[in-house]
Parts: sequence; structure tokens; C-alpha cells
Amino acid sequence: MTSAPTGQVPGVYRRRIGDILVTALCDGYLDADPSVLRNIAPDQVQAVLREGFRPFPPRIAVNAFLVQAKGRTALIETGSGDTMGPTLGHLVANMRAAGVAPEHVEAVLLTHMHPDHSNGLRAPGGGRVFPNAELVFHEAEWRHWQDDAAMAAAPERKRVRYFQAARHQVEPYLNQLRPITGGAVFPGVTAVPIPGHTPGHTAFLVADGPDSLLIWGDTVHIPEIQTRHPEVTLDFDTDPDAAAATRRRLFDQVATDRMLVGGMHIHFPAFAHLARHGEGYALVPEAWSPAM
Amino acid sequence: MTSAPTGQVPGVYRRRIGDILVTALCDGYLDADPSVLRNIAPDQVQAVLREGFRPFPPRIAVNAFLVQAKGRTALIETGSGDTMGPTLGHLVANMRAAGVAPEHVEAVLLTHMHPDHSNGLRAPGGGRVFPNAELVFHEAEWRHWQDDAAMAAAPERKRVRYFQAARHQVEPYLNQLRPITGGAVFPGVTAVPIPGHTPGHTAFLVADGPDSLLIWGDTVHIPEIQTRHPEVTLDFDTDPDAAAATRRRLFDQVATDRMLVGGMHIHFPAFAHLARHGEGYALVPEAWSPAM
Repeated sequence: MTSAPTGQVPGVYRRRIGDILVTALCDGYLDADPSVLRNIAPDQVQAVLREGFRPFPPRIAVNAFLVQAKGRTALIETGSGDTMGPTLGHLVANMRAAGVAPEHVEAVLLTHMHPDHSNGLRAPGGGRVFPNAELVFHEAEWRHWQDDAAMAAAPERKRVRYFQAARHQVEPYLNQLRPITGGAVFPGVTAVPIPGHTPGHTAFLVADGPDSLLIWGDTVHIPEIQTRHPEVTLDFDTDPDAAAATRRRLFDQVATDRMLVGGMHIHFPAFAHLARHGEGYALVPEAWSPAM
Repeated sequence: MTSAPTGQVPGVYRRRIGDILVTALCDGYLDADPSVLRNIAPDQVQAVLREGFRPFPPRIAVNAFLVQAKGRTALIETGSGDTMGPTLGHLVANMRAAGVAPEHVEAVLLTHMHPDHSNGLRAPGGGRVFPNAELVFHEAEWRHWQDDAAMAAAPERKRVRYFQAARHQVEPYLNQLRPITGGAVFPGVTAVPIPGHTPGHTAFLVADGPDSLLIWGDTVHIPEIQTRHPEVTLDFDTDPDAAAATRRRLFDQVATDRMLVGGMHIHFPAFAHLARHGEGYALVPEAWSPAM
């Protein structure tokens, strides 16, 4: 026999939206502290995970999406870089496995600035991971993390891991920032504000002709739990009530219109639909397609 | 930008069962003729597929599994080779992408002898695709396809596509056949007869310590439909009543014991659990794991 491999295959999956190529890229996973969940009893967390044949504590996928449209290349999210341990930080390796180098990326689009989304901007040496990319994000997001008074008032952990990290990660891109408020932001890509999880939390609608994909950022962190119980928030939601209200509104729209969604924390390859299920919803992962 | 790729990534996914490495390999897909379904109204077929966000006509995945255990390599199923058109026949290319060549395969285990399972045995030139493999299958399966009276009585299409194909595919391996009736058949692999779909239809239980995986062959062809409606049979079930009864019995066991299953027609990467759902069941695809 041949010697058995010791690692998983690259986390890369391709899907066309009309003529646009969207490539899901896996950054890795993290095992979440279940105590960050609000509005749900601990034994119910365990029951829902068990019903979905998922481990406890909840294991969360972290994904990003590469968009190649009309000869141009954008990356939606950067993963966590080298800041969150060895189970994460595999985005660039997977992007290279997909045939794209960091210097090919012309724009980095952020759904928001949390460590597992934007800490991949900066290389360990301090420079840019994406030397040729402008940095696109909602203006309310940047304003929030730049707010000195909010930072001073934040608990130590949030000050260091969120406020300081966001500032540190963005710093090498200061000469190429493009704050947005919504609308067309890249060929085939429209920004849709979905505030609550953070002030500038933004979804990106990728569309070509009748085909579309809504990349909904952190609308769910633990899909099994938050689709069944949209009221479940996390203690790092900036405005938990708004986060839950936005999630309910988006779920209703996605289910009613049978939209295809992509999510940073939907299990890789991270494409799914949403079905109504009892009082809540259920995520229906899109089946892997061997053809593109 | 870099030029965009035009094909999907290789259909390869690795999963450990204890110390055994199981690699799911995609052979491709086929669009099924829905008129082969029995015990379900055509509009119900469409409704169930729509509810699962699946296309109509039903698109069926075809998968195989490589098992590497205790230094030895077995392949469970061979896909359809070059006999069923360009959407299928990608097994060997995907196996090579996984780092395994056909000559490394020491045993080919067949769940049964239908074109999308065993037509990958023989190369276009007529020789073996797997030069060093013994061929392992249930003795009732081979007896069935070797039955001259049954072949003479079969309709033309079944005679050519099933009886003649089975004989033709097996012929280069006649000096290395290993008919079985059940029990241990390879390191870590136990054969479990599940007759009905064909007389020798066989599941393979891969187990190491407390970890196990039941590769259940064609217990479902169209998972969305047959989990919800286990009574739905196909016109190429040899004994439709037995096929449905076996399916119901196996579903009960898999759901009760929370078993992990692998299926030739479960969407790639083809690992799942089964949950009770109303009068029937629902398949819960196992989430992609970035780690092995």
C-alpha cells in the first residue's frame, strides 16, 4: 500500500453564480465556549447539538469567500490569521490551493471586524497579507472600533481582542480604505447592511442575472442552535436585541424567497438554504456538486 | 487577477474511524429518470425535492470509499467507469488526487453489481483497472448475475445493462474472486447482508474500537425521497418488497443507535446520520471537518 495521508484535503469548493465564480475557502474551526450564548438554557444547548449530531462544546466552522467577477478578484473576509491557534488560520494556504495568490486580491470585503474575520489582514511581520487590496467595510464598523471612549469603557478582554485588534489589523491598509454604507461595492457584489451583531455588520449579495447568493456574515454562529432559536444571542453581539431582530427579519426573507446563502459559520462548503421548521427554521446545506 | 478555473476541485474527503482512514471518492452524478420510482405520485416526488432545495429530475451522487487499515488498502465500489457518460467515471482520477493509484488497491469490495457500482472494474481496453485486487462480493450476487435462465427471462435492457455488464466487468478478475456470505472480509471491515435491492446487496461495517461507520450501499438512491418515504422502491430493485423492508429495518437500527452511515448515493462527502422525522426519517449530513 501507499503511506496513508495525515491531513484533510484543502478546504476549497467552487460554485458559479451566473458567470461569477465564488470559491468557498475554509479558515479552520474553533470550539466555542457555550457560556457566550444568551437566551437559551445550557441543557437545551446540549439537546439541540445532540439532535443535530454535533459535538459539545459547539464546534464552529470559519469560512471566507473568494469572488471572481468580470476579470476581477475580491476576497470576502480574511479568517483569523495566526492569532487564534492552529485550528484556524488556513485561509491563505487554501486560497493558494485554489490557484489564487494573496497579491491577486484587489479588494478585501469585510462583513465586520471581529478576530476570526479580520485578523488575517496582517502578516506576522506586521505588513499586509494582501499587498494590492483596498479594504472595504461599512463606515459604521470602522467608526465603532475607532471610538476611543467606547474602547476605554470596554472590558479588558474586549478592549484588547476587539478594539485594539481591529485597529492593528487595519493599520497597514490605511492608505487604501474604502468605507461604504451599502449598494454596489464590486462587480456583481452589493453590500446590504444587517446591523446588530456589530454596528457595521454587512451582508454581501452576489448576483448575476437570475442567480444570486447572499453572504450573510455572522447571521448565525452556531447554525443548529440559532436557526431553531433565532432569539439566541452571544455576549459579543454589540447590540443583542438588534442582532436577534435582524436575524429574524433576514430568516423570514431568505426562507420566503428560497434564497441561497453563504455564511462564515455555516459548515464548509458553507452554502445553504433555509426551511421553516416548527417555531423556527432549519438550515438545509446545499449538496456538494461535482460539476461547477 | 489570475485566470479563473473551469472545473470543480477533486471529490476527495478523509475521515478517520479509529485508526482506519476512510476516504470518500466522488465518481460523479447522474440525472435520474423519475419514472423509475414506485409507490409515490409524480407530484409528490417534485414536492419533496423542492422542499429539499433539490433539482428535478433528481440528481444522484455516485460515490465510493477507500479504506486504509493496518497497512492495507481496499476500495469499496468502483463507480461506473466509462460506461455512463461524462458526468460519471471520475473515481480513478479522484483516487489519484487522494494519493492512491489503482495498483495499490488490494481488494475491491462490491455492495452489489449494478453499472454505477461495478462498471469501473474494467478498463476501456478490456483489462483490469485494479491489477492487484481480489474481488469481494456476496455469493448470492454473483450467482444471480450468472443465472442463465434469469438472464434469458430478463427484458432486453436489463439483460444487456445488468446481466451482461456484470459478467463482462468481472471477467478479468475470475482468477481472484472471493465470494462471501458475511462476517470479517478485510482488516476492520465486516460484511452485513442487506438483500432486496439485489440478492447479494451487502453493507460494510468499518469499525475500530468504539468508532464505526456503516457503508450501506444503495439503501437510498434519492436520499430526500426515500428517507421521508422508505416505501419508495425503484424498478431496478430485484425484490422491491424486500428492498423496502430491509430499508425500514436498517433505518430503525441506524436512527436508534445513532450510527454514522456512508452511502453510494448520499451527497458527497457521503457521511450522514439519520433522524426520525414525522412518519419517516431525515438524513442529517455530517458537517465537513477541516481536521481529520
